[in-house]
Amino acid sequence: MQLGLIGLGKMGKNMRERIRRAGIEVVGYDRNPAVSDVASLEDLVAALAAPRIVWIMVPHGDPTTQTVAALKELLDPGDLVIDGGNSYYKDDAVNADSLAERDIHYVDCGVSGGVWGLEEGYGLMAGGSREDVERAMPIFDALRPEGPREDGFAHSGEVGAGHYAKMVHNGIEYGLMHAYAEGWELLEAKDIVTDVHGTFRAWTRGTVVRSWLLDLMVKALEETPHLEGVSEFTTDSGEGRWTLMEGIDNAVPMPVLAAALFARFTSRQENSPQMQAVAALRGQFGGHAVQMLDDKADVNPAAQPKVERGQSTEPS
Amino acid sequence: MQLGLIGLGKMGKNMRERIRRAGIEVVGYDRNPAVSDVASLEDLVAALAAPRIVWIMVPHGDPTTQTVAALKELLDPGDLVIDGGNSYYKDDAVNADSLAERDIHYVDCGVSGGVWGLEEGYGLMAGGSREDVERAMPIFDALRPEGPREDGFAHSGEVGAGHYAKMVHNGIEYGLMHAYAEGWELLEAKDIVTDVHGTFRAWTRGTVVRSWLLDLMVKALEETPHLEGVSEFTTDSGEGRWTLMEGIDNAVPMPVLAAALFARFTSRQENSPQMQAVAALRGQFGGHAVQMLDDKADVNPAAQPKVERGQSTEPS
Amino acid sequence: MQLGLIGLGKMGKNMRERIRRAGIEVVGYDRNPAVSDVASLEDLVAALAAPRIVWIMVPHGDPTTQTVAALKELLDPGDLVIDGGNSYYKDDAVNADSLAERDIHYVDCGVSGGVWGLEEGYGLMAGGSREDVERAMPIFDALRPEGPREDGFAHSGEVGAGHYAKMVHNGIEYGLMHAYAEGWELLEAKDIVTDVHGTFRAWTRGTVVRSWLLDLMVKALEETPHLEGVSEFTTDSGEGRWTLMEGIDNAVPMPVLAAALFARFTSRQENSPQMQAVAALRGQFGGHAVQMLDDKADVNPAAQPKVERGQSTEPS
Amino acid sequence: MQLGLIGLGKMGKNMRERIRRAGIEVVGYDRNPAVSDVASLEDLVAALAAPRIVWIMVPHGDPTTQTVAALKELLDPGDLVIDGGNSYYKDDAVNADSLAERDIHYVDCGVSGGVWGLEEGYGLMAGGSREDVERAMPIFDALRPEGPREDGFAHSGEVGAGHYAKMVHNGIEYGLMHAYAEGWELLEAKDIVTDVHGTFRAWTRGTVVRSWLLDLMVKALEETPHLEGVSEFTTDSGEGRWTLMEGIDNAVPMPVLAAALFARFTSRQENSPQMQAVAALRGQFGGHAVQMLDDKADVNPAAQPKVERGQSTEPS
Repeated sequence: MQLGLIGLGKMGKNMRERIRRAGIEVVGYDRNPAVSDVASLEDLVAALAAPRIVWIMVPHGDPTTQTVAALKELLDPGDLVIDGGNSYYKDDAVNADSLAERDIHYVDCGVSGGVWGLEEGYGLMAGGSREDVERAMPIFDALRPEGPREDGFAHSGEVGAGHYAKMVHNGIEYGLMHAYAEGWELLEAKDIVTDVHGTFRAWTRGTVVRSWLLDLMVKALEETPHLEGVSEFTTDSGEGRWTLMEGIDNAVPMPVLAAALFARFTSRQENSPQMQAVAALRGQFGGHAVQMLDDKADVNPAAQPKVERGQSTEPS
Repeated sequence: MQLGLIGLGKMGKNMRERIRRAGIEVVGYDRNPAVSDVASLEDLVAALAAPRIVWIMVPHGDPTTQTVAALKELLDPGDLVIDGGNSYYKDDAVNADSLAERDIHYVDCGVSGGVWGLEEGYGLMAGGSREDVERAMPIFDALRPEGPREDGFAHSGEVGAGHYAKMVHNGIEYGLMHAYAEGWELLEAKDIVTDVHGTFRAWTRGTVVRSWLLDLMVKALEETPHLEGVSEFTTDSGEGRWTLMEGIDNAVPMPVLAAALFARFTSRQENSPQMQAVAALRGQFGGHAVQMLDDKADVNPAAQPKVERGQSTEPS
Repeated sequence: MQLGLIGLGKMGKNMRERIRRAGIEVVGYDRNPAVSDVASLEDLVAALAAPRIVWIMVPHGDPTTQTVAALKELLDPGDLVIDGGNSYYKDDAVNADSLAERDIHYVDCGVSGGVWGLEEGYGLMAGGSREDVERAMPIFDALRPEGPREDGFAHSGEVGAGHYAKMVHNGIEYGLMHAYAEGWELLEAKDIVTDVHGTFRAWTRGTVVRSWLLDLMVKALEETPHLEGVSEFTTDSGEGRWTLMEGIDNAVPMPVLAAALFARFTSRQENSPQMQAVAALRGQFGGHAVQMLDDKADVNPAAQPKVERGQSTEPS
Repeated sequence: MQLGLIGLGKMGKNMRERIRRAGIEVVGYDRNPAVSDVASLEDLVAALAAPRIVWIMVPHGDPTTQTVAALKELLDPGDLVIDGGNSYYKDDAVNADSLAERDIHYVDCGVSGGVWGLEEGYGLMAGGSREDVERAMPIFDALRPEGPREDGFAHSGEVGAGHYAKMVHNGIEYGLMHAYAEGWELLEAKDIVTDVHGTFRAWTRGTVVRSWLLDLMVKALEETPHLEGVSEFTTDSGEGRWTLMEGIDNAVPMPVLAAALFARFTSRQENSPQMQAVAALRGQFGGHAVQMLDDKADVNPAAQPKVERGQSTEPS
């Protein structure tokens, strides 16, 4: 069996290696010649016997759209394109319809596992027709963790379902991470638990909260026990936003996801405009001193009383 | 009629003036001799004819407790003490019981209005017996806004009810301010509304969102149209926390208050520990670069893409 | 001066009346002949002398789109269309561009005030060119509350800005209402404040939380002191969702709006699927009895202990 | 080695069995003679040779307090009491101090694992002196999962630290469960993923969200694929509330926990008072029809449009 694999970044390179280990021939292409097996998409297509399977693993949006457009020209009727990137699920129908004009088949596949997938396997969620998904099954079997297929692979539905499932997976991930993070902050803030790292480690076996993310948290704490020097600055890659918008669109309350996403937004603000507004309002009605940015050097946050008792008969 | 008034800070001083304007004799005491009418609590008590009414307007907690204790010694049976500060409602029963041992009466009264109360009057919520509240009514009438008594004064219930009502009032206030603040930030972030200040001003009449806080927001924007230089740093004076804890204790969901209170907590953190944990976790599973504090100088938040499209086939 | 007004529902009918009171001739059209001044859009256009001003006040989405399309055929170059409905701001550019093909001008205008606007005036936020907005100013002046123009009217920006401002106004409104609602529930849940209605009424003057919405809440409580018999079922009309999505799109955290919107979603669910999932999960790890819907008749929520002390050494 | 174990409910009975399998003699006492090894606490103490270790596994609050009081009378100086229930951490200092009056030692231990602990072992977090914890180590080793001690046991700090750690553990648990629950509801609400159960199962291996709770969710879905008939009604056992209150007290924002806890509160309300208030308010300003409970039989929630387009030029 052969596979064409386009995009050999952090994810793609490891996936190529894992699929090869399963005995499948992989022809990889990347704009970076240092990691690419072939010099061009044309060469990649030429290196594969029809009917071909080509897996796209490039950033979502324009890069994926352009790759699909190029493959539409290069591939033959009957070939199969799999988009394994983190594409927006509504893009899938567009891509599938476009390729169908030349009778090229399309499957979308959510891929989870991060840099650990090479050794541990990837969790996979595929969307497409039963026939197309079956045809790519050896690839899926190579990528997924060992054990029963159903424990690491799902045929989630028609085209788009794979990316939708992956999107929701990532939305859940936001909430899980934030739940641990809140607990960690509280344990660090309160002086009663003197071995926070050890306590988190003790949770990794036997407890209700054990998980892979918890294992990773323990690993992070082994490296920097109190996360000294780590910045709060946290980006978001789109899927959390998409999931929340889907929640809104389907009237599904998602307060946990919203909280986790908003905390990321806030982590990137040097001076929150909404809190400027609250501070300014308090200054208006209460004569509460409004702190100006220029004053900041003088402020010792540690000196902020837990509750400002002294201000209590100030206006409110 | 006479009133003893203890505590002549931002609130107390204005209240003395407003009560005097109503023709009531006020003997004020404050530790600061520059504003005090008498030299000591003893002098204050001596200056009043029994049965006395003494209003306490000092910070909640220890200062109020100590003042009550002192008055218990100095006052006579039949006198009435009113605590108008922002005391925790559970303190009221303790104070009332203590004073009752010497047959001194007790009323708690929530007072709202801020620095504007001198001219506009104060909203009042009293807790205590019908007789005690009636006895102090001339004081309440002097303090409350003009118009029907019921529009600025309530006998909310027995002892403790006044402070409970004021606590909830302040909890609501947190949510109201934050609602305006969120809307303001969005209008400032999106470039479509080019006159944000004017838009807020237009809301002050006729609209559903018109309110006194909105008037104050417009006033703040008149002073600094984009709140330039105002720090996000916002303290909290206890009543928001108490209200949320009451919600928890009574199984009342209070997500709006929680959001507003938590935003204040976050505004005082230089580097959110929980977001450090999220950032560290992402670094573990995805090889996402963890930004260190030392890097921060190099970060241009404005350069952060709205959604990081380029990272999207990175691990997740 | 003349105005054509399309859509004479709860809002449009009152607006016609208010504009007429200002001495402006209004020709109103509605599909409902009982309230319409003319029999058709054609008649409405014929009744107005060019250059005309036609105000659309019909539901957003298809009805507005279709009305704009019809007016594009019927009106003459130089005429002005104002969309005063709650249209999505992105529709404005589409409508303006379409009308511009026939040199018909376009202004969007957010209108707030509800059924009270007839007597109290409407808060207005307009988007469009300076010339077009000036041209319609007599209409705006007729609709807005008396007093300084700037206190009830804003020229918020170019086309789209009026609806954007109104959208954010409504998003704020969600949060304001929910803040009062949380406070009210807590006061009702806790037995200490025995006069909740009176306490709310006392807040309407002098306090920090005084507002028009508070006045309305007091009015509602006058009719049904404990809202007896009122269903929790609350719809949402789109603008809350749009505002939250804008927040997400612009990386503006809006936790208060999210909480208020999600509470509306939940209010329409008979049996929350996400809480079914939580209940099922607890049943799995803890042997906590999972309550089935069939059991529900036997459940007395009032008998639910505040904290289930008896379950505490159950698994967790 | 010997252990006295008081409380043989769902947790205690399994723990007795697991400790016995490790070769330790366990004398169990329960008020229920059907499961008890001895007839009374006196008999339990008499059956153990000094210096004794007695593990309390009864509900927190009064039952635990009373058991500690009884043991204070019955035990000898040098004996050790371990409270393994879900006690509030502030109770630990009280219990420890009381027992110390008779030189009886005290350790608190958080125990996680649910009904699965018998076979898989329990995650343990202990609080107390180094000597006392060391002395009980054979018991901890018997209870914890196999493998490195640090992966299922922590000496978290002094007295109280074990229960504090367990409290936070449970707070995190609330958030984790709710994150999965939100994702599940969205997948069920949107029709694109046609195999939700299979998708959740595919997440159990290789993905970032894999966890023990996810395994349990899959198990629950195997029993009832769409959780048919499961009620939303979800209780809370106190630790979520305590954790959130600790967050408030330490100025740690915990929006994820708050969301999860509040959703439980709401799940127990037939008719949310705060949403009654919102509905009533909307009725006041907009003439929006307020739905009364009596109407409810006529409401078809499925017929509720996702966004009520038709209501959009209604007042707002």
